[in-house]
Amino acid sequence: MFTNTRQRTIEWGDCDPAGIVFNPRYFEWFDAATAGLFARALGMTKAAMVKHYGIVGIPLVDTRASFRVPCAYGDEVRIESTVAEFRRSSFDVRHRLLRADGTLAVEGFETRVWVGADPDRPGGIKARPIPEEVTARFAVTPPGEG
Amino acid sequence: MFTNTRQRTIEWGDCDPAGIVFNPRYFEWFDAATAGLFARALGMTKAAMVKHYGIVGIPLVDTRASFRVPCAYGDEVRIESTVAEFRRSSFDVRHRLLRADGTLAVEGFETRVWVGADPDRPGGIKARPIPEEVTARFAVTPPGEG
Amino acid sequence: MFTNTRQRTIEWGDCDPAGIVFNPRYFEWFDAATAGLFARALGMTKAAMVKHYGIVGIPLVDTRASFRVPCAYGDEVRIESTVAEFRRSSFDVRHRLLRADGTLAVEGFETRVWVGADPDRPGGIKARPIPEEVTARFAVTPPGEG
Amino acid sequence: MFTNTRQRTIEWGDCDPAGIVFNPRYFEWFDAATAGLFARALGMTKAAMVKHYGIVGIPLVDTRASFRVPCAYGDEVRIESTVAEFRRSSFDVRHRLLRADGTLAVEGFETRVWVGADPDRPGGIKARPIPEEVTARFAVTPPGEG
Repeated sequence: MFTNTRQRTIEWGDCDPAGIVFNPRYFEWFDAATAGLFARALGMTKAAMVKHYGIVGIPLVDTRASFRVPCAYGDEVRIESTVAEFRRSSFDVRHRLLRADGTLAVEGFETRVWVGADPDRPGGIKARPIPEEVTARFAVTPPGEG
Repeated sequence: MFTNTRQRTIEWGDCDPAGIVFNPRYFEWFDAATAGLFARALGMTKAAMVKHYGIVGIPLVDTRASFRVPCAYGDEVRIESTVAEFRRSSFDVRHRLLRADGTLAVEGFETRVWVGADPDRPGGIKARPIPEEVTARFAVTPPGEG
Repeated sequence: MFTNTRQRTIEWGDCDPAGIVFNPRYFEWFDAATAGLFARALGMTKAAMVKHYGIVGIPLVDTRASFRVPCAYGDEVRIESTVAEFRRSSFDVRHRLLRADGTLAVEGFETRVWVGADPDRPGGIKARPIPEEVTARFAVTPPGEG
Repeated sequence: MFTNTRQRTIEWGDCDPAGIVFNPRYFEWFDAATAGLFARALGMTKAAMVKHYGIVGIPLVDTRASFRVPCAYGDEVRIESTVAEFRRSSFDVRHRLLRADGTLAVEGFETRVWVGADPDRPGGIKARPIPEEVTARFAVTPPGEG
């Protein structure tokens, strides 16, 4: 499955008085990691993706994280993101945040929906089937990854 | 079960370009809501609680949220927080974020651990049994709530 | 001059590993405090203000803060906000963040512009004269303040 | 003067309902940029710097930013940071945030103090003279920059 990896340095302002990352920061990074995953898999920015597929976006409906090992100021971490499952109009993203030594620190899970404008309700949104062209892009392993 | 309620106005800076609350904000509010819940149930600040019970804190090990209805700039919301279950040394907090009309917008769940210093490992932490004095405080319904 | 005051409790997630408020938080609070100041002075929400005056908004062009005394987790603070000066189409907001004992902890200054759509440039914005009706609202001292 | 440059992509969660960066984000990035500037100039992490020089830190006492051109979701920006002036125990950092086309979008200024523990006041801090060894490191132009 297509996986995207991002590097990040834990900054002072990411951490709380216990000296470890304040948990909402992980959700910020996972949100950006999902955007990066789609941008790389589809070869276009999110703005271009929205226009190309005629959608409104891929809003989050459910998210979860498990905190196994804390990360602290100055840590170099990487986030590996992949789509764990595509369904008709929703899909699950899995993020693994690892420390430089390879320790799994945080696992994140997101359920998102592929939505377009609702033709029957001005301003409303409606789930749409995910195009096969999209899921096909995630079925390949990018060069340089195993 | 003891429940604590907080009011909040959705600010401009809480919202993303879609005009709705950016999801990590909910986790910030849930974290503060848990602190407020314990402060009110135990009748002392978190700093006092840490000292009184000789603990290091109540770190989050797992969290989850379901986004049912978006909240937008200017919305007045309230967060109702309660402990759903106490176990020997861990417990689950449940948060319900409601809009002014009573619509349930977001549900949040946290699993936290009651931890103290690990006597065998300097700087380390270790799960501790939650004192009955603490769980007893959550068993009551505060005046004015039903 | 019309002054608006807001109370706030310093939360765990507002603080950094030194145990004090991470400076960008103050700018979040000042932004929200300015919105609150206008809402209260004009007696309408920002959304209503934008529609009523036919403007796009009051974007920030310059901001500054002086940090005199740090604030820490659990502190109860209040932010007093006022417009220090109205000019033709720009104005200065001053915020004073005080600790519960009255100590001035942080001073903030914002310069904002009253802007509407630019008729000559689609999507562009242009400074507009601030209506006298607006400045008049700030010239009064609200009841209960001195 | 020694200058450090960082690249950054503007993420969805950095932006407000107007689709542009919410101003406190710039202060987060400037704080991290100053940490990166010192780490690179001194060749050590901030944790190592604090230990090596026997200081408590370099707290911010004053900060300011001018917003010239907004940045939006997806923009690739770079932040160029340098120390504009060293005084006996305080110094000024200047940040220039530029868009990919070289447009200056935001200018930031920070005044910080070199502080150590106050020998006369337990828990207190006191300004200390900045070592010449430190200022000397900033006087050089790093290889590959002009």
